[in-house]
Amino acid sequence: MAKIKALKCKECGATYPVEPIHVCEYCFGPLEIDYDYEYIKSIISKEKIEKGPKSLWRYIDLLPVENPTVGLSAGFTPLIKAENLGKELGIKNLYIKDDSVNHPTLSFKDRVVSVALSKAKEFGFDTAACASTGNLANSVAAHAASAGMKCFVFIPSNLETNKIIGSLVFNPTVVAVDGNYDDVNRLSSEIANEFGWAFVNINVRPFYAEGSKTLAFEVAEQLGWKIPDAVVAPLASGSLYTKIWKGFNEFINLGLVEGKPPRMYGAQASGCSPIYKAFKEGRDFIKPEKPDTIAKSIAIGNPADGPYAVKTAKESNGDIEIATNEEIIEGIKLLARTEGIFTETAGGTTIAVLKKFAEKGVFKEDEVVVAYITGNGYKTMEVLEGKLNKPIHIKPSLIEFKEKVIKGG
Amino acid sequence: MAKIKALKCKECGATYPVEPIHVCEYCFGPLEIDYDYEYIKSIISKEKIEKGPKSLWRYIDLLPVENPTVGLSAGFTPLIKAENLGKELGIKNLYIKDDSVNHPTLSFKDRVVSVALSKAKEFGFDTAACASTGNLANSVAAHAASAGMKCFVFIPSNLETNKIIGSLVFNPTVVAVDGNYDDVNRLSSEIANEFGWAFVNINVRPFYAEGSKTLAFEVAEQLGWKIPDAVVAPLASGSLYTKIWKGFNEFINLGLVEGKPPRMYGAQASGCSPIYKAFKEGRDFIKPEKPDTIAKSIAIGNPADGPYAVKTAKESNGDIEIATNEEIIEGIKLLARTEGIFTETAGGTTIAVLKKFAEKGVFKEDEVVVAYITGNGYKTMEVLEGKLNKPIHIKPSLIEFKEKVIKGG
Repeated sequence: MAKIKALKCKECGATYPVEPIHVCEYCFGPLEIDYDYEYIKSIISKEKIEKGPKSLWRYIDLLPVENPTVGLSAGFTPLIKAENLGKELGIKNLYIKDDSVNHPTLSFKDRVVSVALSKAKEFGFDTAACASTGNLANSVAAHAASAGMKCFVFIPSNLETNKIIGSLVFNPTVVAVDGNYDDVNRLSSEIANEFGWAFVNINVRPFYAEGSKTLAFEVAEQLGWKIPDAVVAPLASGSLYTKIWKGFNEFINLGLVEGKPPRMYGAQASGCSPIYKAFKEGRDFIKPEKPDTIAKSIAIGNPADGPYAVKTAKESNGDIEIATNEEIIEGIKLLARTEGIFTETAGGTTIAVLKKFAEKGVFKEDEVVVAYITGNGYKTMEVLEGKLNKPIHIKPSLIEFKEKVIKGG
Repeated sequence: MAKIKALKCKECGATYPVEPIHVCEYCFGPLEIDYDYEYIKSIISKEKIEKGPKSLWRYIDLLPVENPTVGLSAGFTPLIKAENLGKELGIKNLYIKDDSVNHPTLSFKDRVVSVALSKAKEFGFDTAACASTGNLANSVAAHAASAGMKCFVFIPSNLETNKIIGSLVFNPTVVAVDGNYDDVNRLSSEIANEFGWAFVNINVRPFYAEGSKTLAFEVAEQLGWKIPDAVVAPLASGSLYTKIWKGFNEFINLGLVEGKPPRMYGAQASGCSPIYKAFKEGRDFIKPEKPDTIAKSIAIGNPADGPYAVKTAKESNGDIEIATNEEIIEGIKLLARTEGIFTETAGGTTIAVLKKFAEKGVFKEDEVVVAYITGNGYKTMEVLEGKLNKPIHIKPSLIEFKEKVIKGG
C-alpha cells in the first residue's frame, strides 16, 4: 500500500512489515501505522472526501485498508447541535457526536471493527475474535456474521444481559470468563498467540485502533471543515481518546482544515479511573485497579493506551474528570431530557464530566465544544431501573384519564 | 405552501384547508395531503435532492412541511446488499433497507414523527402526544424532548419493558392503558377531541403518515435512481405499506425514475392478521380482531388504513402473508446470522414472510427485491430468551478454554 510505509513502534521507533502483529520485539511497545503523509497529501482533498460514500470509508486515504469489504455502512453518524443542553450548561456552541445510532450495533465499535475485519480479510483470516466489555463483542459478532467469518467473543461473565443477547443473536461462540475485563484480556492475549485468529483488539489492534480517527474526521467535516475548540470523550483503554486527537492533527497537518487541535477532555467513572489518577498525580505510568462501576463498557482497570491518553491530555491542554454512578445516571437522563438522545453508561459518564467542566468554566463563550456519545442506552437499560418516573396506569376511560393523569399529574 | 393545494378526503374527495384535522366531515373518510404536482415537478430534481441534507429532509419538496425544526437527523438509513441472506433464499439481488439504526430511536417511526412534530410546531402546538405500541412512543418522547414540547404517550400496559424505559427516559408523561392498542387508540381519539394537543397519529395523521414515503424515496435513490421489482414490508395500521407504494409512484410520475412501481408484499403476524384475511377473502373491509402475537409493534386489530393496504396489494400485483411466533423468532435469527443486523419482532415477521414468498418462487431471477427492516432488536430482546445458544462459562485459564470451548465446542 503506497499510503503506508510500515508498522512502527510507538516507543523505540523500530519498524516492521505490515502484518497482523502489535508488539515491538525489542522494547515491547505498541506498534502503530506509519503513513506516508507526503503521498497521502498528494491524493486527498475535501472534494474527494465529500464525494465519497456516506460512511467512514470516505476517509479511506487515512485508514490502513486497501479494499473495504466489512462494515460498509459504519460511521458518518449525526452531529447534533445541542441547543437545549447547551443552554442548561451555558455552552452556546455545543454539539453531540452521536454514535448511539452507528450501523449496525449502535456504538463507536462499529468503526474500529469495520476497519479491523476489512484488514483481517485482506490478511486472509477466516476467524474473528475479541476481548470485550460488551459493545465490541456485539460489533465483532455482527460484522463476522455479515463477512462470513467464524467468530469467538470473550466477555466478563457479569456483563449486562442485553449486551450478551446482543452478541448471541449473531451466533458466535460467546465465552463468558469468570473475572473482569482485564482477566478476559489477559486470557485473550494467550489465545491470540496460539490460534491463528484475527483478535481485533489484540493482534489486529494497530489497524483496528485507526478506525476511531474517523470520529475526528467526521466532526471536522460536519462542522464545515473546522476544528472544535474542545472535545469531551470517554476513556476506557485510552485508544479512542488518543485517536480522536491524532485524527484532528492529521487533518490539520494535511491542510484539510486550519487552526489548532482541540483541548481534549477525558471522562472516566470514579469506580475505575486509573488514567484520571495518573494524570492528576503527574505520573506517566498507570497503576492498574479493580473496576467497580456501572459504566462497564469503559471499566478497564489496566488500560493499554493509558500512558498515551495522559500524554494527550497534557499536550492538548486538556483535563480529565470522573463521575460517580449517580452522576452517570443523571448524565444519561440529562441528555435524554434535553436532546432526545438515549445513551448508555459510557455516554452518561461523558455528559456528567462535560457538565463538571462547564461548571468549572473551562469553556469560553463562543467556543465550539463537542461531546462524543459512543453507545446506545438500550444496551445498559438495567441501570435505569427505579431511577425514572413510573407510567400512570388507567383503564381505557376518558374520566379516569382526567382524574388520574390531568388532575393527579 | 405552494406545494400543497389542500387536505382532501380519500373517499369522497371533499377538500379542506391545511389544518390539524384528519376526518372528512361528510363521509368520515381519512384526509390526505393534496399536492400540486405540477408545481413540485417544476422545482424538484435528482441533482437538488443529492445536494440536500443526509436525512429524510432531502425530500422536503414532497413532504407537507415548510420549515423542518424537529428530527433533523432522521432517515437516510443504510440500504444493505444482502448477499448472504440472498444466497440462502435464492434471491440474487436482495437488499435490506435498515431503519433499525434510525436517529434517534431506532425505528422508522423517527421518520413520521419528524414530519408530524415539525408540522405541529408550524401549527403552534406546544404539546405532543400519541397512541403507540412502543416504537412511536419512544420516538414522540425523544423528539418532543429535543423540540421543547410537553409530551403525553399512551401505551398498552402489557408492553415490552425495554420499550417502556425507552420512552420514560425522555421524561414524558407515560399513560399505560389496561387494554390492547385498539383500546389505547380509541381513548386517545376521545382525548384528542378535547385537548389542544398534537396527537401525531390522530389529528396530525395526514402529515405524519407522509413521512413513510421517504422509505420509498431513499430506496430509489440508493439503488441509483431505480425502482425495485418487489418490496416486502410489515403491515400494522397499513399506513407504512400504502405510503411506500405512494412514494414510488410519486417518483415515477414526477419523472425522477423510470419503470413501473414494485409489487408490494405485506407481512402480518398470524396472531393479528386482519389485513391478510381481508385480502385473502377478497373483502374490501376489515373485520377487527383481538391481537395475540409477540410482534406487538404491528399488533393492530383494527387497522386504520387496512382497506387501503388491501387495495395496494391488489393494484401492485402483490400479496400478503403471515408468520407465527416461532417463524418470527427464526426470522430475527436468520437476519442476524446472515447479515449481522439485529431487528425486532416486526422485522422478524418481514424476514419470515420474505422467506415464504421466496420459497413460493414469486421473485424471478435477477429481480431486485427490498425488505424493509423497521425497528431494532434491542427493543424486543425478551422474545429471544431461551431461543439462543448460551455463553460457555470458563475461568480465565488457557487450559480451561481449550477443554471447554475448543474440545467441548
